[in-house]
Amino acid sequence: MRALRWHGNKDLRIDEIPEPELRPGWVKVKNAWAGICGSDLHEYTVGPKNVPIEPHALTKETVPSVLGHEFSGTIAELGPGVTDLKVGQKVAVFPVLTDGSCYWCSQDTYGLCPKWGFLGYSGYGGGMAEYVCVEREAIHIIPDNMPLDVAALVEPLAVAWHAVKVADLGPDADALVVGAGPIGIAVVHCLLAHGITSVTVTEPSPSRAEHAKNAGAAHVLNPMTEDVLELSKQIGDGRGFHAVFDCAGVQVAFDTALACVRGKGKIVNIAIFETPLVIKTPNIINRRSITYVGSNIYTRGEFQEVIDAIASGKIKNPEKMITGKVSLKDAVIDGFETLLMQKDKHVKILIDATSG
Amino acid sequence: MRALRWHGNKDLRIDEIPEPELRPGWVKVKNAWAGICGSDLHEYTVGPKNVPIEPHALTKETVPSVLGHEFSGTIAELGPGVTDLKVGQKVAVFPVLTDGSCYWCSQDTYGLCPKWGFLGYSGYGGGMAEYVCVEREAIHIIPDNMPLDVAALVEPLAVAWHAVKVADLGPDADALVVGAGPIGIAVVHCLLAHGITSVTVTEPSPSRAEHAKNAGAAHVLNPMTEDVLELSKQIGDGRGFHAVFDCAGVQVAFDTALACVRGKGKIVNIAIFETPLVIKTPNIINRRSITYVGSNIYTRGEFQEVIDAIASGKIKNPEKMITGKVSLKDAVIDGFETLLMQKDKHVKILIDATSG
Repeated sequence: MRALRWHGNKDLRIDEIPEPELRPGWVKVKNAWAGICGSDLHEYTVGPKNVPIEPHALTKETVPSVLGHEFSGTIAELGPGVTDLKVGQKVAVFPVLTDGSCYWCSQDTYGLCPKWGFLGYSGYGGGMAEYVCVEREAIHIIPDNMPLDVAALVEPLAVAWHAVKVADLGPDADALVVGAGPIGIAVVHCLLAHGITSVTVTEPSPSRAEHAKNAGAAHVLNPMTEDVLELSKQIGDGRGFHAVFDCAGVQVAFDTALACVRGKGKIVNIAIFETPLVIKTPNIINRRSITYVGSNIYTRGEFQEVIDAIASGKIKNPEKMITGKVSLKDAVIDGFETLLMQKDKHVKILIDATSG
Repeated sequence: MRALRWHGNKDLRIDEIPEPELRPGWVKVKNAWAGICGSDLHEYTVGPKNVPIEPHALTKETVPSVLGHEFSGTIAELGPGVTDLKVGQKVAVFPVLTDGSCYWCSQDTYGLCPKWGFLGYSGYGGGMAEYVCVEREAIHIIPDNMPLDVAALVEPLAVAWHAVKVADLGPDADALVVGAGPIGIAVVHCLLAHGITSVTVTEPSPSRAEHAKNAGAAHVLNPMTEDVLELSKQIGDGRGFHAVFDCAGVQVAFDTALACVRGKGKIVNIAIFETPLVIKTPNIINRRSITYVGSNIYTRGEFQEVIDAIASGKIKNPEKMITGKVSLKDAVIDGFETLLMQKDKHVKILIDATSG
């Protein structure tokens, strides 16, 4: 079968590799769509970051790795012992790999499992290939009325869904999303799905600002030309935002967050930083009883909640996140390179894994 | 009456001033003991910080200010309309001044009240004087079996009590207290009072380490010579501390906190910083789902909870925090200057306000 594999920094190849073998208790999926994630781009440009150079603790595999951890497909074959599924069912795949037996797995905090990994990085294949074999537990059936391309958005939406749950907001809360990249846009969708309508986004790029408006943000500001702090005093009761989601991971984003969050409010860190972060006025943190909290991936339950929220219409028009579709064979140029060149124009480019 | 007043940087004076006038609904207290707080020292050495140079929003007063916000006394006289108290009753005084009508006051978050102040800084007098007049609401009756010197510890213990409640720990939690100054020691007392017995303290000063042991800490480490991170892997289930209380406010303390806090754990900031804080590895915050949260003062309810906890013996031997007593007339040299010179030898020096 064809698979897009990471061989090295700036070296992704469409390889012809054997189809994965089905094990007892596992399921073979014919992949449909796989989204290109920011961390995939990172792997492409400055990797290895997530791919295993030495045998991975869980999979024992090393690079080259099939990429793709945001993906959907249909069930192609059931392994021995899998009796509750049917060939042909549409699925979204929970991509986090864990050994399942550790303390952190028992706490649904897979990111702290000492053996954790990800389909699409760590071995066992991924979504940017014609087929993948996964444990039964990774299979989430999607409803008939949900298109397979939308099902490929479940994973990034689950990242945002978890962050929104970490913020633990009531429907009357005022929320600020700093940065309208794919995760920022997903946070907007998930806030709205939680009934929070006062959603403000700051984003300097006009294209990304447009995506934020399309996602349903009530206010979209350019922090280079507009006064976010001043707006924070006009929104709601004027005491600032109940929660600020840092989806940018740069110093100025945190500074904005700390200036605009209300007393007793939360700053949720959902970004990847490439430099240290300076809290210029640390006494503000206790003087105003601020909480700065990290959000990492999602639980299996939350992954399913996102599917249910899309199916029920709570997450509205998630398909607006899809700004491009490319074939597997053209994925490096039309997908990865396009995202690098025209990052701001896109939210999510999906790779058609069936296209060959 | 005699009062210790802040006139300027390094200029504290024992002044002869008129006794405060009693207003309707207020209570006149004959002060007994007043603790010297770290922020009093700060005011002495690098003030003005808290004292009002311009008329305070609430009290309308300016410097010179009577110092002393950690204090106890006996009721000397009741203002018109105060019918539920008796002259001679022993009291601890809730020192936070607010206008009581704002949103944040309604949320028990007095530190965000736009008019907030403190007895002992902002006007209306303070504990380092023979008398003070305060609103009825500020009066907390202390039980007969509680000595008045111990009652002067209620305020710093309430700061620690609030921080421990912010951490929201179960009795099986492992706690780390970074820095064994007065607030660190108070946190140890309050953790133990909450049933948390696994209390570790890091403190480079041998004298302060001794205070931490006296307070009941299970482990006291010198971070200059002992490996705190290694110990964090040996305590409890080996996954690190459920909560770390930063009672130091320096970079290395935060670095230790972030290294030693377990996944999903909390770092509670209860310190005053004099420099910016650098989070060297911000991705750790989300990768490990860490919460960094500020703790500021306490509620009226928590102030009372501390009195009840001392009375019931939940807070054990708080009197061990008292390492010195000085007369009002000698307070600058034997109190403030001694604390500056021999900071590590003391936890809390109390001023005898009755001594003249």
